[in-house]
Amino acid sequence: MGIRLGPNRYGKAESRVVRIVRDTPRHEIRDLNVSTALYGDFAAAHTDGDQSQVLPTDTQKNTAFAFAKKYGVDSPEDYALVLGRRLFEATPAAHGAMVKVSEYAWDRIRVDGSGHDHAFVRRGGEVRTTAVHVSPGRTSVDSGLRELVVLKSTGSEFKGFLRDEYTTLAEADDRILATELQADWRYSRFDDIDWNASYASVRAVLLATFATTYSRALQETLYLMGKAVLEAHDEIDLISFKAPNKHHFLVDLEPFGLDNPGEVFIAADRPYGLIEATVVRDGEPS
Amino acid sequence: MGIRLGPNRYGKAESRVVRIVRDTPRHEIRDLNVSTALYGDFAAAHTDGDQSQVLPTDTQKNTAFAFAKKYGVDSPEDYALVLGRRLFEATPAAHGAMVKVSEYAWDRIRVDGSGHDHAFVRRGGEVRTTAVHVSPGRTSVDSGLRELVVLKSTGSEFKGFLRDEYTTLAEADDRILATELQADWRYSRFDDIDWNASYASVRAVLLATFATTYSRALQETLYLMGKAVLEAHDEIDLISFKAPNKHHFLVDLEPFGLDNPGEVFIAADRPYGLIEATVVRDGEPS
Amino acid sequence: MGIRLGPNRYGKAESRVVRIVRDTPRHEIRDLNVSTALYGDFAAAHTDGDQSQVLPTDTQKNTAFAFAKKYGVDSPEDYALVLGRRLFEATPAAHGAMVKVSEYAWDRIRVDGSGHDHAFVRRGGEVRTTAVHVSPGRTSVDSGLRELVVLKSTGSEFKGFLRDEYTTLAEADDRILATELQADWRYSRFDDIDWNASYASVRAVLLATFATTYSRALQETLYLMGKAVLEAHDEIDLISFKAPNKHHFLVDLEPFGLDNPGEVFIAADRPYGLIEATVVRDGEPS
Amino acid sequence: MGIRLGPNRYGKAESRVVRIVRDTPRHEIRDLNVSTALYGDFAAAHTDGDQSQVLPTDTQKNTAFAFAKKYGVDSPEDYALVLGRRLFEATPAAHGAMVKVSEYAWDRIRVDGSGHDHAFVRRGGEVRTTAVHVSPGRTSVDSGLRELVVLKSTGSEFKGFLRDEYTTLAEADDRILATELQADWRYSRFDDIDWNASYASVRAVLLATFATTYSRALQETLYLMGKAVLEAHDEIDLISFKAPNKHHFLVDLEPFGLDNPGEVFIAADRPYGLIEATVVRDGEPS
Repeated sequence: MGIRLGPNRYGKAESRVVRIVRDTPRHEIRDLNVSTALYGDFAAAHTDGDQSQVLPTDTQKNTAFAFAKKYGVDSPEDYALVLGRRLFEATPAAHGAMVKVSEYAWDRIRVDGSGHDHAFVRRGGEVRTTAVHVSPGRTSVDSGLRELVVLKSTGSEFKGFLRDEYTTLAEADDRILATELQADWRYSRFDDIDWNASYASVRAVLLATFATTYSRALQETLYLMGKAVLEAHDEIDLISFKAPNKHHFLVDLEPFGLDNPGEVFIAADRPYGLIEATVVRDGEPS
Repeated sequence: MGIRLGPNRYGKAESRVVRIVRDTPRHEIRDLNVSTALYGDFAAAHTDGDQSQVLPTDTQKNTAFAFAKKYGVDSPEDYALVLGRRLFEATPAAHGAMVKVSEYAWDRIRVDGSGHDHAFVRRGGEVRTTAVHVSPGRTSVDSGLRELVVLKSTGSEFKGFLRDEYTTLAEADDRILATELQADWRYSRFDDIDWNASYASVRAVLLATFATTYSRALQETLYLMGKAVLEAHDEIDLISFKAPNKHHFLVDLEPFGLDNPGEVFIAADRPYGLIEATVVRDGEPS
Repeated sequence: MGIRLGPNRYGKAESRVVRIVRDTPRHEIRDLNVSTALYGDFAAAHTDGDQSQVLPTDTQKNTAFAFAKKYGVDSPEDYALVLGRRLFEATPAAHGAMVKVSEYAWDRIRVDGSGHDHAFVRRGGEVRTTAVHVSPGRTSVDSGLRELVVLKSTGSEFKGFLRDEYTTLAEADDRILATELQADWRYSRFDDIDWNASYASVRAVLLATFATTYSRALQETLYLMGKAVLEAHDEIDLISFKAPNKHHFLVDLEPFGLDNPGEVFIAADRPYGLIEATVVRDGEPS
Repeated sequence: MGIRLGPNRYGKAESRVVRIVRDTPRHEIRDLNVSTALYGDFAAAHTDGDQSQVLPTDTQKNTAFAFAKKYGVDSPEDYALVLGRRLFEATPAAHGAMVKVSEYAWDRIRVDGSGHDHAFVRRGGEVRTTAVHVSPGRTSVDSGLRELVVLKSTGSEFKGFLRDEYTTLAEADDRILATELQADWRYSRFDDIDWNASYASVRAVLLATFATTYSRALQETLYLMGKAVLEAHDEIDLISFKAPNKHHFLVDLEPFGLDNPGEVFIAADRPYGLIEATVVRDGEPS
């Protein structure tokens, strides 16, 4: 009975590419974490130790840095597309190339009311992401964000759930709802997109929907957030979420003669609920 | 144009279940990190805020702790199977249940040459894992390990690779090969397996193959490791690897009048090569 | 020859206290990580297993949550002072109490141009800190921040340094200067301080000084930042810094026919320079 | 009123030095994380941007790698002493040099019952440390370990403690005691020490004492561990501990009709007790 090589890919992960634009005294900065991968007919490298079709991961890294100079970084998506196409074309055995980019945002430091020309402070908060896939029949762009931590101090309940003999949870009429959101949305086209504007708008829609909708469960909130994004963005046909339910437990202060009507909570680490959901436009694959 | 709910699931992640067996003065310990998830027809929870088919994640957690008492933890696999079956059966709308377990190993503390009855030291090193999927037509067990850090100080080369205009890498005749291995193997049956013995044997085969085979690339080494596991374990029909190439760069000591024939290296953090490969038995899906 | 107990202390670390103010529909949130410790005459607990003078760490935690309700959290400093005084007074054997608080900032989610009443997004970026020490002869407040990541894309040099036979570093006329700042400043009085305003002002002075001063070394920049704080804040008599020099190395693009005049950098992880310095008002102890 | 520079130091942190000894086919590996720092009269670098007395952190790093070749790494202590002396001597303005080393342990991979010549698996578990301070009047060596995770499943109580109105903790007759130990011990001499043997013995004494002594509080256990080390090692005159009480809470299974006599626990993350204590030989400073 034989044994064979199954799915495989290889690449260079987490190249920390920092691009300064200094054409004028007012500098710009793009701060990226870039991972690339190739897949295709690389069986000989595995079974015979033959590297003749293998573009080294070191070369992939070099290309990532060189392209940051050559083409700049107008957006993570533009950069990833040009880099992915190059890696695919440079590697005859490849069937496809994948480029993932995380971007860390920086703000100009405020001095006397205006932003400084060349001094920056890292914004923190969420990380912007994109994952580009280049292959002959199919190029795709999935952009997103992760580590967007949001919290509602009211406007959230959880009740009417299924019960069995291991159920002890009390129904909650008014609880804290908090999550560290990861969202990934799929673009249905990518030739005329203003990637930075699209990102900013999706982020704003996600936040506003989270804020303004009553929540009967994190599942419902995610669905409404996804629906709002698809309604506002016809260039997006699918959005998926991964959202830990960051539990905030009301602390029992009664032993100390204090009531606690939703005022003092302990933020718990583990375990946490984990909700994953996808919202998709009718007629598109999920 | 309508919008619909796509794939979704929910559960409780990272319940830290510690089970002590104290039937005799010689205690045993199993230290687990348990995550459970259910998927199925939960659309109403998303679109209407209706939780009546939703078994709370809190209940899933309760069941994980209760089952550690009721059925014990002979192995992560036995425990995950019984827990997964229960969660599936308790939830009429579920189409399947998934249970993931990580196990942290402990050794008895040595006192006067023998292991103490009830005092333990955490072993460190790799984490043992299993992922069990329970559904009507298909139950599966994928076990594995992660964070197994291995290194060869010789017996590794990388040369003869594809070159383009961004290639600057020199060929290496004798380099350090190091990785932090993640391996996941699929069992083709699961009714008569001694899970603990199978785990120990797979781990030993992986390590011995890494040690004793010459490496012309990390890809080749992974393939040989996978092949050795499948040859030695007919209960396993697929194994996949995720292996960062943890680069160790030879330090140039020539400016200081010192040669450096493979003796002093700097261990780099990022970027790193990332090799992913699957080895599968002929006739089985990959 | 005898053996004795030396310095010791004990407490509860990292209570995650979340305080919601909901007296009106416009909620406020304070999100804290609270650690408390007591020291004093606790020898019997160590040498005789006698706990009769030991206020349990669990009680310290309970007090931290109860006081968040009872006294609110106008500022980390106000909260830490009242909590520290209580723990000291509740423990006859204590010679002093220490309370450390980290605060995570949240912003209101913007909806239609204004901040939402009860929905928040975590700001990210730096963490605000305070360390309060309560003891009969000496109460002190040291406040600060950590994880404030700043970068200048020009206006930084490093040259004229000492050389020995292990020196290979080239002089730099124009480099990136980046650090993840930790700063701790000591208040000389604490009865009439607007802690939140003082924090905001110190943070602004630190950032503006980093931005507007030319840097001949990270040491010089830290000194100037400290000096500016002391000049602007007579309630502060000492400030200390811990600042990793987060190296950004210019990437050599010449092999690819590209010049690189300060445009493309690789952000390195390890090793990093680490600069620690204190700036203090004359006449005050350092 | 003037402003002055207070205490300061600078150096290179976290150089990842890997030293292979390959004089014979049976290789050895030492895997180190090295941080160095200098302090002294470096005021001009801070106040005038004058680097003429500053040995660059880059040079410190170069020296760390060169000395790993030149002098080898018989032990972290031997290596740190020779490196610290060099950095001090190379820097006229220095009043002292500090070298901190963490060592990660590797085991030979077992093949057919014996350890392989050049293939290793990282052991995991605790990290070995040393901190060497070189200055004219005073050289010191403080060695230690951190991340040694130990647990007793019985033989631990906590009762008879002080109570106030915020105390709700129940007395515990039989609980799990677990900690992640950090220990640092000070050598009273350092010319004739077998550093590796001393380390191994201290580690063994710490573990055996933890295992074999009944615990009326973590404080008592730490004191007994320290006392045992000082009694067994006359070359050590002080040992200090930092030990989080890693709480394992008994899970209430009564709602599910199950008793739980010390069998099923949840391992909690935060908050945790934090116990710090020092044990010192009479006549020596603490």
